[in-house]
Amino acid sequence: MQNYKAPERDTLFVTQELLGMEAHYQALGFDEVSEDLVRAIYTEAGKFSENILAPINAIGDQEGCKIDDGVVTTPTGFKEAYAQYVEGGWPSMAHPEEFGGQGLPYSLATSLAEWFSGANHSWAMYPGLSQGCMETLKSHGTEEQQALFLDKLIEGSWTGTMCLTEPHCGSDLGMLKCKAEPNDDGSYSLTGTKIFISAGEHDMSENIIHIVLARLPGAPAGTKGISLFIVPKYNLDENGNVADRNTVKCGSIEHKMGIKGSATCVMNFDGAKAHLIGQENRGLNCMFTFMNIARIGTGVEGLSAIEAAFQGALAYAQDRVQFRSMSGVKSPDKPADPIIVHPDVRRMLLTQKSLAEGNRALANYCMKLVDVTCYSKDESDVKLADAKLALLTPIVKAFLTETAQEATSYGMQVYGGHGYIAEWGMEQLARDTRICTMYEGTTGIQAIDLLGRKIMGSNGELLNVFTQEIRDYCTEVRGKSMFNAWTNAIDSHVDEWQQITKDIGLSAANNPEELGAASVDYLMFSGYVTVGYFWLKMAVLAQEKIDQGSSESDFYQAKIHTAKFYFDRMLTRTRSLVSAIHSGSENLMQMDAELFKVG
Amino acid sequence: MQNYKAPERDTLFVTQELLGMEAHYQALGFDEVSEDLVRAIYTEAGKFSENILAPINAIGDQEGCKIDDGVVTTPTGFKEAYAQYVEGGWPSMAHPEEFGGQGLPYSLATSLAEWFSGANHSWAMYPGLSQGCMETLKSHGTEEQQALFLDKLIEGSWTGTMCLTEPHCGSDLGMLKCKAEPNDDGSYSLTGTKIFISAGEHDMSENIIHIVLARLPGAPAGTKGISLFIVPKYNLDENGNVADRNTVKCGSIEHKMGIKGSATCVMNFDGAKAHLIGQENRGLNCMFTFMNIARIGTGVEGLSAIEAAFQGALAYAQDRVQFRSMSGVKSPDKPADPIIVHPDVRRMLLTQKSLAEGNRALANYCMKLVDVTCYSKDESDVKLADAKLALLTPIVKAFLTETAQEATSYGMQVYGGHGYIAEWGMEQLARDTRICTMYEGTTGIQAIDLLGRKIMGSNGELLNVFTQEIRDYCTEVRGKSMFNAWTNAIDSHVDEWQQITKDIGLSAANNPEELGAASVDYLMFSGYVTVGYFWLKMAVLAQEKIDQGSSESDFYQAKIHTAKFYFDRMLTRTRSLVSAIHSGSENLMQMDAELFKVG
Repeated sequence: MQNYKAPERDTLFVTQELLGMEAHYQALGFDEVSEDLVRAIYTEAGKFSENILAPINAIGDQEGCKIDDGVVTTPTGFKEAYAQYVEGGWPSMAHPEEFGGQGLPYSLATSLAEWFSGANHSWAMYPGLSQGCMETLKSHGTEEQQALFLDKLIEGSWTGTMCLTEPHCGSDLGMLKCKAEPNDDGSYSLTGTKIFISAGEHDMSENIIHIVLARLPGAPAGTKGISLFIVPKYNLDENGNVADRNTVKCGSIEHKMGIKGSATCVMNFDGAKAHLIGQENRGLNCMFTFMNIARIGTGVEGLSAIEAAFQGALAYAQDRVQFRSMSGVKSPDKPADPIIVHPDVRRMLLTQKSLAEGNRALANYCMKLVDVTCYSKDESDVKLADAKLALLTPIVKAFLTETAQEATSYGMQVYGGHGYIAEWGMEQLARDTRICTMYEGTTGIQAIDLLGRKIMGSNGELLNVFTQEIRDYCTEVRGKSMFNAWTNAIDSHVDEWQQITKDIGLSAANNPEELGAASVDYLMFSGYVTVGYFWLKMAVLAQEKIDQGSSESDFYQAKIHTAKFYFDRMLTRTRSLVSAIHSGSENLMQMDAELFKVG
Repeated sequence: MQNYKAPERDTLFVTQELLGMEAHYQALGFDEVSEDLVRAIYTEAGKFSENILAPINAIGDQEGCKIDDGVVTTPTGFKEAYAQYVEGGWPSMAHPEEFGGQGLPYSLATSLAEWFSGANHSWAMYPGLSQGCMETLKSHGTEEQQALFLDKLIEGSWTGTMCLTEPHCGSDLGMLKCKAEPNDDGSYSLTGTKIFISAGEHDMSENIIHIVLARLPGAPAGTKGISLFIVPKYNLDENGNVADRNTVKCGSIEHKMGIKGSATCVMNFDGAKAHLIGQENRGLNCMFTFMNIARIGTGVEGLSAIEAAFQGALAYAQDRVQFRSMSGVKSPDKPADPIIVHPDVRRMLLTQKSLAEGNRALANYCMKLVDVTCYSKDESDVKLADAKLALLTPIVKAFLTETAQEATSYGMQVYGGHGYIAEWGMEQLARDTRICTMYEGTTGIQAIDLLGRKIMGSNGELLNVFTQEIRDYCTEVRGKSMFNAWTNAIDSHVDEWQQITKDIGLSAANNPEELGAASVDYLMFSGYVTVGYFWLKMAVLAQEKIDQGSSESDFYQAKIHTAKFYFDRMLTRTRSLVSAIHSGSENLMQMDAELFKVG
């Protein structure tokens, strides 16, 4: 079993050195959030990840959740870890003081989310899902609703869920059927079945607050007739305390490939007492507030798995001896050399490493933008950050989770046959992270959101806003660093990004299927270029640190080596993606659906 | 739960129409193996796959194997299915009549192996592993050994294993430690521990015959001091009947990601009675006889998973309705269109379909070569087939299993979140096939075998032998089909294949790490080009059939559409592979091993 170590040093590099979070926090009025405070929080979060969450990760997988007549029991240790999480004040960290929060900035929670999930993906989903519920209440709840529900959620004694999916409708929410009938007292009676409800039922908290999408009587068909409701597991008495049991019950839990410690529930609402939140029929708009953050959060889960897979693979590659190096014996005292001497093992390790570090920079950059949209009082800053976030959110969600599939697969592959054996923990990582390209909107959904809604929907404007940032940076460093070749590579990829976008726009004007045909390859292209931009920045910064005589030259030198790997072997993956994009939709759509046959 | 359907029609297309197996069998003296006989065997094999093996596939996964004091119990139905397999005469099909076999050609068993594994990967491993044992006995056993063991193995009442791996040595067999001490009666006492022994212990057969690699006293170190032994679970009496229990025992079975119905055993040999097979210290040479076929067989397992994943994804894509087509409503009678209308869903389905059919052509082509090496009396034919097989074996093993990872992942992805749920069967496929890139030599091992031992080891001669076949075919069809663009694409990829090979050869002359650095990308490049060659042939043949007025024009039209997809979106993956290959070893090897750190 591999040990998880919170990547504290690299996270400090990204947040403090690369993204200048200290100055950023000061500018937004978080005067007390110095680098020292960040370091102190990191240290505690690292301990919680390594000592509390990691040790129960395999147990969660082995035991899974159990259900008995609607009562769900989480795996051994999960409940106790949650109690420690609440006791440590972690849930309230990035919430406003008016609701009992600690008033720290959002982005600070990103690293914690990464590490908690890296140590124990299943466990981290319980507090993770509460976030969606809290954001919805914060943005759309009445003062009374916030007073009733938000404090308890923020302190962590209650948890929350988001209830969207029904058996016949996943991404296409317009088809949803759950109904809410008005009662005389202003509440509603909600009836229907929701599936895939993470943390829908469990034994960690005193109450569970469900945010549920449903239709009012006579509501318009499709997405314009969906409203949002609060449905507590236990109704509240006049003092806001837990009272009688509401008629919402967990019907069953799913048997899944992974995240077995996370209860994925079928939730049956049988005339359950519900409270409208936000305006009638505007439920989907309210959802979008929260969806951006949830999608970045899912991307961060992917990142966390890449890091954990790298750690596991590296430990084995340094320990396992097998064959001699082709360029001469490296460990004469051993019967063979450690497999890290072999080029193909290094190719796998560097793929993981370059993705972990590059994706970490991108994810934290996005959460920095989230800070601006939440806290800045400068309207033009907010507008710019909003535009960049709109573009980058589907990229972060899909690129970080797709690359996690490859990285966790390499985690196993470096181990050879041992990677397939449960006790090493590598196969659990691959199984757990497999859900990430599917939930919170599949990769296909992200890709059409990016290319259709965001890029074509803004006539390319959202793309220009971000590529301008990249171009400005390239202009700034050209001729001033050792990395002109990489600067030029990024610059020419940005040219290509815009050219491809124009090409697709033209062909889609005649044939709307062109968007879907190009979308996933386009998203992955965008991901490789965006992460390439961060690798260029990291390499330039690392060289500066070396030139300044840093005592950590090994750390910075490793960054530059990893950047070289990324530019040589990862960014070049765009070559095939561009070919596929240019091939158009005919090779997908020309074949009649009836010609697809088994036999 | 999806239903498996044996892909009979497509297999007939490959074996009879594309590869001309009837004429091939006649030429090798198998006069009675007409197309009619092949069809009759396919029909029965299809029924066995669909009705006997598929229904116990999920059960095998849920129950797994159980062990109690060295006694292993296989999942419900496995034992009974094996009894039916023996009763049906399947084990003896492709074995010589002199040992009680039915004397049918090897290649005929390929499709059966594909379908059995497609229906139930775990179950198919039990008879699959026996093959290695039988081949070893056939090629290297004395007449007495063959008489004692081979008949029972071929009739299926006994099964066999191959015992190679030890805890500290997987690919690097030179380090193995198991010891065999000679006894006075000419037998040996074998002591040591073997791991990862598939079918090492189970309840399906009366006896289990282990083929074990071990060292004799005073044997040279490394691979030149390894001998091969027969170790039966039950010793035999003078009449060859099962007698006393030998001192070999299963110590434990592994908890694995998948193939849970297959018992992966730790086998403890405690002075077990053993019989030398082949010459002393020549054990590894004897192993290589069998390894080629085992590696193609593993590739076929990958193929089987691709087909099964395609079948499952297609059924869901035709059934599940979600959103409307971008080019207008397709199913006005339904609340939304079936998701097969969406381009990105088709991209995933066509990736699976083009890989299933293209890889099937390649695998069967290789088994046709195996036939020639086994049965032909024409020395130059045998030599040519041997050369092509040497080249193609690592490609088939690695390319078919690597592409199976993508195809089974798409099997889940097409289902969205439902793909992650056990009951649909898609996640089991992904877990089961994950082992295929690791066992029988990892992808990295195959890649260095291809580029190092085979291509550089023959000074490029093995590559020339196969590329000549491709070039001759391109010359033959150029100007005579509608597919000149594809013919030219294959031709130019062959040019590139040879150029890359030369480039690597030159750089490796100065730096041996260049081979390992290029190897996996080189192998994948080779795979895409080789399968592209078969797609060209299949498209040309399909067009001929259409031109001849075939009544199955839909089937042939689908082939041509799928070929277009392959040339536009799969063969173009070579662009990034070539970039990576040309980037050389520096981006992998320059970074000191000490700079790889977690943090």
